Amino acid sequence: MTVTTTTVDAARTMLRPREDTRLPERMARSALTTDGAGLRTEDFTDWLEARRRAHAFRVGRIPFSDLEGWSFLESTGNLVHRSGRFFSVEGLHVTVGDGPIREWQQPIIKQPEVGILGILVKEFDGVLHFLMQAKMEPGNPNLLQLSPTVQATRSNYTKAHKGADVKYIDHFTQPGRRRILADSLQSEHGSWFLRKSNRNMIVEALGEVPLDDDFCWLTLGQIGELLRRDNVVNMDARTVLSCALAPEPGTDALHSDTELLSWFTAERARHDVSAERVPLRDIRGWKRGHGTIDHEAGRYFSVVAVAVEAGNREVARWTQPLFEPHGLGVTAFLTRRFGGVPHLLAHARVEGGFADTVELGPTVQYTPENYAHLTAAHRPPFLDAVLDADPSRIRYEAVHSEEGGRFLNAESRYLFLESDEQEAPLDPPPGYVWVTPEQFARLLRHNHYVNVQARTLLSCLTSQAVRL
Amino acid sequence: MTVTTTTVDAARTMLRPREDTRLPERMARSALTTDGAGLRTEDFTDWLEARRRAHAFRVGRIPFSDLEGWSFLESTGNLVHRSGRFFSVEGLHVTVGDGPIREWQQPIIKQPEVGILGILVKEFDGVLHFLMQAKMEPGNPNLLQLSPTVQATRSNYTKAHKGADVKYIDHFTQPGRRRILADSLQSEHGSWFLRKSNRNMIVEALGEVPLDDDFCWLTLGQIGELLRRDNVVNMDARTVLSCALAPEPGTDALHSDTELLSWFTAERARHDVSAERVPLRDIRGWKRGHGTIDHEAGRYFSVVAVAVEAGNREVARWTQPLFEPHGLGVTAFLTRRFGGVPHLLAHARVEGGFADTVELGPTVQYTPENYAHLTAAHRPPFLDAVLDADPSRIRYEAVHSEEGGRFLNAESRYLFLESDEQEAPLDPPPGYVWVTPEQFARLLRHNHYVNVQARTLLSCLTSQAVRL
Repeated sequence: MTVTTTTVDAARTMLRPREDTRLPERMARSALTTDGAGLRTEDFTDWLEARRRAHAFRVGRIPFSDLEGWSFLESTGNLVHRSGRFFSVEGLHVTVGDGPIREWQQPIIKQPEVGILGILVKEFDGVLHFLMQAKMEPGNPNLLQLSPTVQATRSNYTKAHKGADVKYIDHFTQPGRRRILADSLQSEHGSWFLRKSNRNMIVEALGEVPLDDDFCWLTLGQIGELLRRDNVVNMDARTVLSCALAPEPGTDALHSDTELLSWFTAERARHDVSAERVPLRDIRGWKRGHGTIDHEAGRYFSVVAVAVEAGNREVARWTQPLFEPHGLGVTAFLTRRFGGVPHLLAHARVEGGFADTVELGPTVQYTPENYAHLTAAHRPPFLDAVLDADPSRIRYEAVHSEEGGRFLNAESRYLFLESDEQEAPLDPPPGYVWVTPEQFARLLRHNHYVNVQARTLLSCLTSQAVRL
Repeated sequence: MTVTTTTVDAARTMLRPREDTRLPERMARSALTTDGAGLRTEDFTDWLEARRRAHAFRVGRIPFSDLEGWSFLESTGNLVHRSGRFFSVEGLHVTVGDGPIREWQQPIIKQPEVGILGILVKEFDGVLHFLMQAKMEPGNPNLLQLSPTVQATRSNYTKAHKGADVKYIDHFTQPGRRRILADSLQSEHGSWFLRKSNRNMIVEALGEVPLDDDFCWLTLGQIGELLRRDNVVNMDARTVLSCALAPEPGTDALHSDTELLSWFTAERARHDVSAERVPLRDIRGWKRGHGTIDHEAGRYFSVVAVAVEAGNREVARWTQPLFEPHGLGVTAFLTRRFGGVPHLLAHARVEGGFADTVELGPTVQYTPENYAHLTAAHRPPFLDAVLDADPSRIRYEAVHSEEGGRFLNAESRYLFLESDEQEAPLDPPPGYVWVTPEQFARLLRHNHYVNVQARTLLSCLTSQAVRL
């Protein structure tokens, strides 16, 4: 019994509060700090250019036959790597219960392993700073963007491709002097990935952290300034930053949390979505050429191949397939204040590759060209409100690109648009719901509520690139 | 602008608190009330017997060839209904990264549609009462058990089988005078169902509710008394009740919520689970006879067929397949107090049919016979601690059966066992974590954290059938 008593006494002192109530204030202070202890924002462009010069990056398109280690399987036509790892391009047959297009087939990226997207943070002068990396990804229009501290597939950090170690990875995979501030599985693009999710982690280092080449410490406020520029902060950084969203708790909302969760549950349950893998060779409506797989009407995206040469990447030269979307996307939240409290109009979107029917996306998330052939009745809701918006209503606008490791020049205009009752009614159409930033922050602690495009926009709130 | 101003004023009054802070107290009051305004607990057995007599139930085993509307498909050997609805029995090929058995094939129930399990509650004399139903399910060992108000597949309430209306369903599917207290998607048995989940709903009626035959109003405390009896409260009722778990908020815990979520995220990410559907005809290790599909070693479960005749069911006679597990399961939480706060030892369980690799299960969830052939080193952790437990440590014990609409005589002993450092250390082995009831309550607001067996045990906390 002595042992037990001692253990209980020890355990009593080991109990801890369930919530870190200081975190919202610490994040807010970092967001309000625009002169950090590390790199100055006005020096950022020069620093990034210096990193660009320090390495020789070259990316060129190649025919599929020049892919090294990749090939189309005899049996299925699927595009796979000989190691069986990394990812594969397969076919997907999707049926949905309603909407203008209820059945289609398409190429899809299958990458079942869960990667880590992680940002290491540390206090300097009492302010949280984020360790960001200048990282080349072959699909980025400008190749080099600001990425999280760590952006690693499991193949990366278990060295399936025999490359160099992933820097700082131990902070995310090993216990030690650290405090975990956020850690959840979040989906990636459901239109291009089959059930893909990554761990989104924010970890506070409690000891010394050496600063490596290609890395810099920035406050949230500095990152917010960079988020107002086109194509600087990469998708992986944006999604992790969204998980740091930490508004002051306690505000009321149009819907209680239980009502919001019930609405979401009903949306999940009411959609019949079936997504079955099919051989890539057999998919209807797509044709394979020497260097591209294209939709017959030229819509949506193409599958292409590139060769990459880079000095600071884990391996020095490689070839790989990429998805190249057609057209510039438009991705926007309509926002309103109700009773003084800002709300965002979210959309329960069906995407064929989601793990579970729907996730909350922005009000608008479309590539307008893909809908040009549809009749006015089938035109996506709210799209015209965004395309025709009075510039005075635009609270935020920047062009960002999606994951440059899988997507080539996948750019979208991201916007926050102040709205009114006529454009975005208090009682929105089915499938839409008003959500406060704080409610989004709660949802982001859990898996698969908020899609990656909405997370990009929410990262602008985290960093106060936009204030509602 | 007038319109806008009016709308904003209206909206201000429409804002509401995000949390219903009175709910835990209201649930606790119902749990402490053992004499309800409806049926008295001491009259319950007679009432249930009267309901049993009021209908003629007969369930008998039949060969597969006597199934009506069901057949094995030529192409795959899958067992399907001619309507394409209800469910089908198919094959599943599972591979997991570690454990004593890393690859297997098995029959699995595929039922993609999301059903509703819902309990209507209403205040009488200031105390919440739950509207429960005496419902026959062919697989229940005693046929008639206490079910939720509504237990309906989508086929049920959209009338795929042309039966009678589902009573009270409008309270769950239609807006009206009601308040939603809980509504989340929760998984069912991952070893027998492929990615099956149901909406678990608790809805408070704000208007009059007529009391139908086969239904009764009970307080949580009364249901707690019935949960201490064997095979009275059915699985569907138990899982919904677990979602009413509402301990007083604010207690500390061994792990902060962020740490707990991070631990869970790591468990989800570290398991490589692949579950692929295969034709039922081809599964290795199973053999199909005239009336059963059995595992070659006689382990796990059999697929069987039954004919059912019932008076109060939606249709009067039907035949269907059922899964019949072999042996009595043992399902238990080991519990300890740390610093005065009760904790349950949860296990991140891999089950082939889960939507996402692992969910939190009880400490122990096994059918001992299925493990008799394994060496001591592969004996499930904590199983012997439960089997050999000193009776004075047993805080709760009852036999409950799983969903009688799909499973035949699927019984398990459910236990809470008070434990100590030797049996269940403060620092448990990998895959196990200490969780407070309040943390479970938070997780149960979201999808797919807590498996159905753990939810049965948690329903005993909701109803104070056991106090820790």
